[in-house]
Amino acid sequence: MSETKSTNIILFSGDYDKAMAAYIIANGAAAYDHNVTIFHTFWGLNALRKDEQVSVKKNFMEKMFGKMMPRGADKMGISKMNYAGFGPKMIKDVMKKHNAMPLPDLIEMAQEQDINLVACTMTMDLLGLQKEELLDEIEYAGVAAYIGDAEDGNVNLFI
Amino acid sequence: MSETKSTNIILFSGDYDKAMAAYIIANGAAAYDHNVTIFHTFWGLNALRKDEQVSVKKNFMEKMFGKMMPRGADKMGISKMNYAGFGPKMIKDVMKKHNAMPLPDLIEMAQEQDINLVACTMTMDLLGLQKEELLDEIEYAGVAAYIGDAEDGNVNLFI
Amino acid sequence: MSETKSTNIILFSGDYDKAMAAYIIANGAAAYDHNVTIFHTFWGLNALRKDEQVSVKKNFMEKMFGKMMPRGADKMGISKMNYAGFGPKMIKDVMKKHNAMPLPDLIEMAQEQDINLVACTMTMDLLGLQKEELLDEIEYAGVAAYIGDAEDGNVNLFI
Repeated sequence: MSETKSTNIILFSGDYDKAMAAYIIANGAAAYDHNVTIFHTFWGLNALRKDEQVSVKKNFMEKMFGKMMPRGADKMGISKMNYAGFGPKMIKDVMKKHNAMPLPDLIEMAQEQDINLVACTMTMDLLGLQKEELLDEIEYAGVAAYIGDAEDGNVNLFI
Repeated sequence: MSETKSTNIILFSGDYDKAMAAYIIANGAAAYDHNVTIFHTFWGLNALRKDEQVSVKKNFMEKMFGKMMPRGADKMGISKMNYAGFGPKMIKDVMKKHNAMPLPDLIEMAQEQDINLVACTMTMDLLGLQKEELLDEIEYAGVAAYIGDAEDGNVNLFI
Repeated sequence: MSETKSTNIILFSGDYDKAMAAYIIANGAAAYDHNVTIFHTFWGLNALRKDEQVSVKKNFMEKMFGKMMPRGADKMGISKMNYAGFGPKMIKDVMKKHNAMPLPDLIEMAQEQDINLVACTMTMDLLGLQKEELLDEIEYAGVAAYIGDAEDGNVNLFI
């Protein structure tokens, strides 16, 4: 076990607010000199999508998934739509007012702080997402790499 | 790292059943002499709201949030409304029948066991919640304090 | 603390995709020689239900819960129904195409790898689930046993 502390977050959720929480914790841990990894799997992969459409070859099902899922962090929905009027727009308005960083900025900050942003290759395959569609300078790995990191980790979270 | 073990739970969810799970684990860990902290952020803050209306100055948006969000643990909804007839009432009826502790009692027990109940100041600010609206004898902190606790923690969970 | 590393997952969710994530991580950790436990509580108990109907004595409320909740892993819904056409069927079709293991197979693999599958007795009681209705060769325990395992654990997750 090394001296440097480490934080390993699995981001499973595709909700804007949960992804915000993940990135706020990650950026906080990086500020405290942790070695930080966010492992994006299932719907959490959407946070890593580029916001423009990328031309790649897909079968029918993959095209459907591609269209239905939000294209990038800024387009993700929030977890509690049932609190009536709440919606990403309302949250974003409030955030702007309070000078809180929106999710795309939190992701950029994470990259500047050398947080390891990992895309789960198994679920990319399942959902038909290709490397060209995801942000540049991220890593690709599977569950084995996650276990290898997390087993020596200090703060391990599933979000 | 001290000898005392520690459990650090982030309660992000505003669901009655998830908050129950958080408090049951927390109370269990406290019974095993862990130093226990529940860090309430986003919708999890609602578990700490007083159930009466508190008169504080708010702007329009903050008033709206205040009205839409549940006022206190007893008013929180459950995570799986789609299991047809399930609702907080049904769950509470079953709990009563089995002499299980309802959420407000679990929170009271947590306070008696000296569990640290922390409200995340950043999200309080976002949602327009003020100290007067939350339970007495809780603490206020941000992500830095959470990292400081969790990095030496034994059981770290995000709920 | 023993030399063997350990992974302790609380499966609270009754969603097919989240249960898949839990079992994929668990099977991965077991392949890396971790001592692995999945503690099934609340809706996560449904993953352990037998798929046939089991004749046991229940009161009215317990019968209702029994009927409303999915009977076994294969019948669980997914977490994001709001992504339009997504449904368990679509996910399962894609998984089949990619030769990914469906949830019942992941559970069987977990049993073959000697992963400890634990049912939370407190929530079994609440939901009126009886041992006869759950898979054979699982264990039964409460929060105290979970804390005992997790406090020395390496990877602790709440899913």
